[in-house]
Amino acid sequence: MRSVLTDLALERHQMTPEAQREGVRVHTERNGLVERTTVSIETERAAQTMQRPCGQYVTLSFEQAPQLDLELREALQQELASVLAQLIPREGGVLVVGLGNRRVTADALGPRVADATFVTRHLKRHLPPSLAGRVRSVCAAAPGVLGITGMETAEVVRGIVRHVQPTAVIAVDALAARDSARICSTIQIADTGIAPGSGVGNHRQGLTREALGVPVIAVGVPMVVYAATIARDAFSYLVQDSDPNDGEPIGEQAIDALIERVVTQRLGDLVVTPREVDALIDHMAGIVASGINRALHPQLDASEIELLMS
Amino acid sequence: MRSVLTDLALERHQMTPEAQREGVRVHTERNGLVERTTVSIETERAAQTMQRPCGQYVTLSFEQAPQLDLELREALQQELASVLAQLIPREGGVLVVGLGNRRVTADALGPRVADATFVTRHLKRHLPPSLAGRVRSVCAAAPGVLGITGMETAEVVRGIVRHVQPTAVIAVDALAARDSARICSTIQIADTGIAPGSGVGNHRQGLTREALGVPVIAVGVPMVVYAATIARDAFSYLVQDSDPNDGEPIGEQAIDALIERVVTQRLGDLVVTPREVDALIDHMAGIVASGINRALHPQLDASEIELLMS
Amino acid sequence: MRSVLTDLALERHQMTPEAQREGVRVHTERNGLVERTTVSIETERAAQTMQRPCGQYVTLSFEQAPQLDLELREALQQELASVLAQLIPREGGVLVVGLGNRRVTADALGPRVADATFVTRHLKRHLPPSLAGRVRSVCAAAPGVLGITGMETAEVVRGIVRHVQPTAVIAVDALAARDSARICSTIQIADTGIAPGSGVGNHRQGLTREALGVPVIAVGVPMVVYAATIARDAFSYLVQDSDPNDGEPIGEQAIDALIERVVTQRLGDLVVTPREVDALIDHMAGIVASGINRALHPQLDASEIELLMS
Amino acid sequence: MRSVLTDLALERHQMTPEAQREGVRVHTERNGLVERTTVSIETERAAQTMQRPCGQYVTLSFEQAPQLDLELREALQQELASVLAQLIPREGGVLVVGLGNRRVTADALGPRVADATFVTRHLKRHLPPSLAGRVRSVCAAAPGVLGITGMETAEVVRGIVRHVQPTAVIAVDALAARDSARICSTIQIADTGIAPGSGVGNHRQGLTREALGVPVIAVGVPMVVYAATIARDAFSYLVQDSDPNDGEPIGEQAIDALIERVVTQRLGDLVVTPREVDALIDHMAGIVASGINRALHPQLDASEIELLMS
Repeated sequence: MRSVLTDLALERHQMTPEAQREGVRVHTERNGLVERTTVSIETERAAQTMQRPCGQYVTLSFEQAPQLDLELREALQQELASVLAQLIPREGGVLVVGLGNRRVTADALGPRVADATFVTRHLKRHLPPSLAGRVRSVCAAAPGVLGITGMETAEVVRGIVRHVQPTAVIAVDALAARDSARICSTIQIADTGIAPGSGVGNHRQGLTREALGVPVIAVGVPMVVYAATIARDAFSYLVQDSDPNDGEPIGEQAIDALIERVVTQRLGDLVVTPREVDALIDHMAGIVASGINRALHPQLDASEIELLMS
Repeated sequence: MRSVLTDLALERHQMTPEAQREGVRVHTERNGLVERTTVSIETERAAQTMQRPCGQYVTLSFEQAPQLDLELREALQQELASVLAQLIPREGGVLVVGLGNRRVTADALGPRVADATFVTRHLKRHLPPSLAGRVRSVCAAAPGVLGITGMETAEVVRGIVRHVQPTAVIAVDALAARDSARICSTIQIADTGIAPGSGVGNHRQGLTREALGVPVIAVGVPMVVYAATIARDAFSYLVQDSDPNDGEPIGEQAIDALIERVVTQRLGDLVVTPREVDALIDHMAGIVASGINRALHPQLDASEIELLMS
Repeated sequence: MRSVLTDLALERHQMTPEAQREGVRVHTERNGLVERTTVSIETERAAQTMQRPCGQYVTLSFEQAPQLDLELREALQQELASVLAQLIPREGGVLVVGLGNRRVTADALGPRVADATFVTRHLKRHLPPSLAGRVRSVCAAAPGVLGITGMETAEVVRGIVRHVQPTAVIAVDALAARDSARICSTIQIADTGIAPGSGVGNHRQGLTREALGVPVIAVGVPMVVYAATIARDAFSYLVQDSDPNDGEPIGEQAIDALIERVVTQRLGDLVVTPREVDALIDHMAGIVASGINRALHPQLDASEIELLMS
Repeated sequence: MRSVLTDLALERHQMTPEAQREGVRVHTERNGLVERTTVSIETERAAQTMQRPCGQYVTLSFEQAPQLDLELREALQQELASVLAQLIPREGGVLVVGLGNRRVTADALGPRVADATFVTRHLKRHLPPSLAGRVRSVCAAAPGVLGITGMETAEVVRGIVRHVQPTAVIAVDALAARDSARICSTIQIADTGIAPGSGVGNHRQGLTREALGVPVIAVGVPMVVYAATIARDAFSYLVQDSDPNDGEPIGEQAIDALIERVVTQRLGDLVVTPREVDALIDHMAGIVASGINRALHPQLDASEIELLMS
C-alpha cells in the first residue's frame, strides 16, 4: 500500500509497520468528547518514513455528526484554542492565511476561516480603551489558488509576510484523509507549516518557516478522500478479516499489483467528498475560526468577539 | 452483490445475469459524441428483476470532462431535446419540477434546472404577436425536500398539478450511480416518472402517472455514489481480473458475506460526490435546462430563449 | 403626496392628515430597546383612507445597526414571538410561507426565513417521547415568484393549504417602506394576511383569510424604498423646515405637480436597497425565523431548537 | 452642490460650471449602441477643479436594461477591449486586480471580474504549441478589503506587483455615481489608476503608477448612489424646471444650506443600490471580464477563451 494518499500524520503513523516507527513518539489523551493525539516526528529518518517533516502534529478526533451538538462544538473550540496557544508566540502580530479555492466547496475551508477571523490590525489605533489592551494585532488573507490567480500561493503569502511582518502565520487548509471516517471528524494542528504538494488544492510550494521566516502553524480538516483509497482500504480490511481456512492465503504482493492496476484503471484520481459537504464546511469553518479567535484574543470572551465582528 | 444502489436502469441491466434478462430490450446507437442506449422493461417479471417499473429508460452517455467542450455541450442539448420531444405530448401545458435540496450542491440539480427553465404560462397573454404562436405554456416549481418543508414532495406536486392541469410533467432529479465514472457523464430520461425511494434525496413517495394523472418524464443525472459501492465494485473487478493461477479461487459466497460485513462496518452509508461538484452542477444544470427549453419550444432558437429569459 | 409607496400601515397613518384618521386607533408602548406600535384599522372607511384592509398592524421599531447587538437581537426575537403568540391559534398545524425570490437578495427574506423555520410536521411520529408533547406540527414552503415559476404564488399556496390543512398561515415577505430609515429597523406583523399588489415582489393575488380559509398572519421587514420616495420626502422635509422669510411661500399644489414630473422623469420606478443588503438579510432572516420558532414551540428553548435543526 | 459624491469624471465635468472647465477636453463619439466620451484632464488646475488626477477618462455609456441584449453585450465587450488595448503596453505580463468585498454584492464587481479573468501566467510552459504564441502572461488577484483582512489593499497589491513584475495593472472596482440612471449603464476606463478614497469600498490608499511603479488602468462600473444625492439632484432638477412665475425665485445659497441640513439629517450617509443588484453584477462582471480577456489575448477568439477557462 505504498501510494496511499493522506495529509494526516496520524494516519501515516498507523500505516507504518511497527518496526519502522523509530523516531516517532505518540501520545494520546482524552478531554471529554475530544481525543488529542500528538505525533512527534523526531529524526530525519522518521521524517522520511512518514513522508512528513520533523515536528509536532496534534490531532483532535471526535465523533463526526451532521449535527455537531453545542457541547461538542464548544469542547472542540476550546481544545483547538488551547493547542494553538501553546504553538504561537505570546506577543506580536499574527497573519491567518486561508488556503484553497472558495468556489470549490470542499476546498473552501481556508477562505471561509479567513473571512471569519477577527482581524484587528487596522483597528489598533481606533479601539476604545476598554478593548485596546486586550486585543492582539491580527490580519487575514485568502490568496486564492494557482488556477484562478496564475500565481503560486506561497509567493503571494511571502509578499504579504514581508510587508506585514507578523511573528507567526496560521495557515488553514482542507486536507485529504485516507479513511473516509475522518472527514470532518478530525482537526490536525502542526508546527511544521504546510509541506509542498499537500492539501486538497495541492499547493506546489510549501508554506514553512524556511520559506516565510516566521513560525507557521498549519490547521487542517480532512474534507476529501481519494476514491482509490476507499477501494484499497476496503480490500485491506478484507484481507485482515478473512479466515485463512476459507482458502489459500492470498499472495500479498501479487494482490498489491492487482489492486493497483484495477483501482487505477477504474477510479483514476477521482477525489470525493461527502454529499453534505456544504453544511459540513459551514460547521467546521465556524469551529476552526472560533478556535483561532480565542487563541489569539484570550482576553476577549466569545460573545465580545461575535459582537465586534458583526 | 444484491444491495448495489443505483438509479440507472442501464447499470441494473448490466448487473443482471444474462439468464434473467428476459423481458428487457436494449438498443444502442451513437450520434457523434453521445451514445444513446434505450432500455425497455417490457414485462412485470423483468420489472421485478430490474427493480424498476415497466417503461423506457434512455441513457445518454458521454466522456465526462471538467471542461465540457462547446461541441459536446451542443450535442448533448440537442440529443436530450430530441429524446424529450418524443416522450412529451405535442400540445398543452408542461410543468417542470426540480426535485432536491438547493442547499446541498450535489442534490441541487433539480432546483437549478427549474430556475433556468423558460417559463411562459404567466406570459401567454402578454407576448408580442411575433412570439405568441411559437411559445408553449410552461411553468416550473422547486418544491424543496421533506426535511426543509415538512411536506412530502409528491404531495406538494400533486397540489400544483391539480391546479395547473398540465398535459405532462418533467421531473428533474440528481441520481445515485453505482459506477463513479458515470457521475456527470450520463443523463437518464425515463417515461416512468420517479419511483418512490429513488434519487439522491430519496423521495419517499413517487412522482408517477398513477400519482399525478398525467405522463411524468423523469430526467436525471448521477451526482453521487455510495462509498460502499466503490469498494464493492473494486473488489468485483479484482475477482474478474485475478489470475486463477495466483492461488486457490476465492469462494464467491464466503467473500460476498465478508465484503458486506467489512464494507458496511467501515463505510456505513456514506454517500460521496466529486470534489468539483460545484462546477459540475453548474454545467449539467445548464445543459439539462437548455435541452428541456429546446424540447418545449422547438420554434424558438437558443439565443431567443436566452434573450427572453435574461 | 398621493402616490407614496409603502407597505407599512404605520407610515400610511403618519401620512394621513389628522382630520381623516377616524376609525384608526394607535397604541404605542416601549419594552426596553423595542418600541411596539399597534395600528388598528376599525372601519371600512378608515380602510379606504389607509389603503389597507381592516385589522391589526403591529410594528416593532428599533435602532437600525449594521451590528445588531446580542441584547437587541434577543429582545426582538422575544417581542416578535410574543406578538405572534397572541395572533396564532393555540393548537393545530401551522404553515410558514416564505414569499419572494431567493435569487434577489433584497427580496429573499421570505425564502430565507422558510429555510430557517423549524419544521416538524414530518417528524411527529418519530420524535423521542421527551420532545413529542412539546413540539407543534409546522411545515414551511418557499413557492417562488411568478417570473420564475409561471404560477401565481397565491395559487400555489392555496394548493398547499388545501392539502396540509393548517389552522393558520404565517406569510413572511420583504416590504417597501417610504422612509429609508425604516429599512431593517422595523418588523410589521399584521393579522390581515398579505394584500394583493403589496410586498417587494408585488404579489398580484393576495394571501388572506378569504383566499385561504384560515387566519393569515403577515410578517414583513422593509428592505427597499423607491428612489422617487427618497426625493419626494426630502422635498417635503425641506418645505416643512423652510423659513417663510426666505421668500414667497411655495404654492403646494404647483410644487406637487412639479415634483411628480421631475421625479418620475428622472428616477422612474427605481427601487433601491442599502449597499449592505447581504448582511442585513442574514441578520433579519435569523431574527424573524427565531421569533417564529419560539412562538410556535414555546416549550422548547432556543438552544434545543438550534440543536434539532442542525 | 459642493459635496456631491461621484467616481465618474464625466459627472464631475457635467457639474463643473462652464467658466471653470479650462484644461479639460471632452470628446464624444458613438459606435452603434455605445457612446464613448473621453474626458482629458490636462492641467493641474483642472485636476483640482475636477478633484481627479490628470489623465484620460473614457466613459462608455449605454441604455441600461435588466435584459442586456446579446447585441449590446457584444458591442460593449468589443468597445471595452478596444479602449483597453490602447492603454495597455503591447508586451509583457499584466496583473488584473479585483477590488472590493465579494460578500457585499454591490461591491463584488472586482472580485467577480478577477475570478472570470483568463489567467495564463502559470500555464505558459505547459501550453500546447498551437496556443503558446498567442497567449499573454496574465495573473489576477482579489485581495479583499481592509475590514476583512486588516490590511490596506494597496499594500497587498504592492507586494504582489513587486513579486510578479507586470508591465501593467488593470484595477477593477465598483463605483459610486451621482445619477442613479448611471448604475450599470456606464463603464469608466481611466489611465490614472485608482485615487485614494474613491470606489464603493473607499480604498484609503490609491493604486497608481506612483505607488506601484507601472501603469495602472482603472476599470469601474457605478453600482451605488448616495441616497442624499438622489434627494439633492431631484431638488436641483426642480429648481431648473420651475417656472419663475410660480413665485419668487428661490435664493440658491439659502436653499443649498437647507438641503444640506435636511438631507444630512434624514438620509445620513445611506448608500443604495438597485434591488436587482444580484443580476446586474452577474451581467456586468461578465461583460467587463470578457472585455479584459479580449484586450489581453487579441489572438484568441471568445469561444477559445471560454473553452480554455472551463
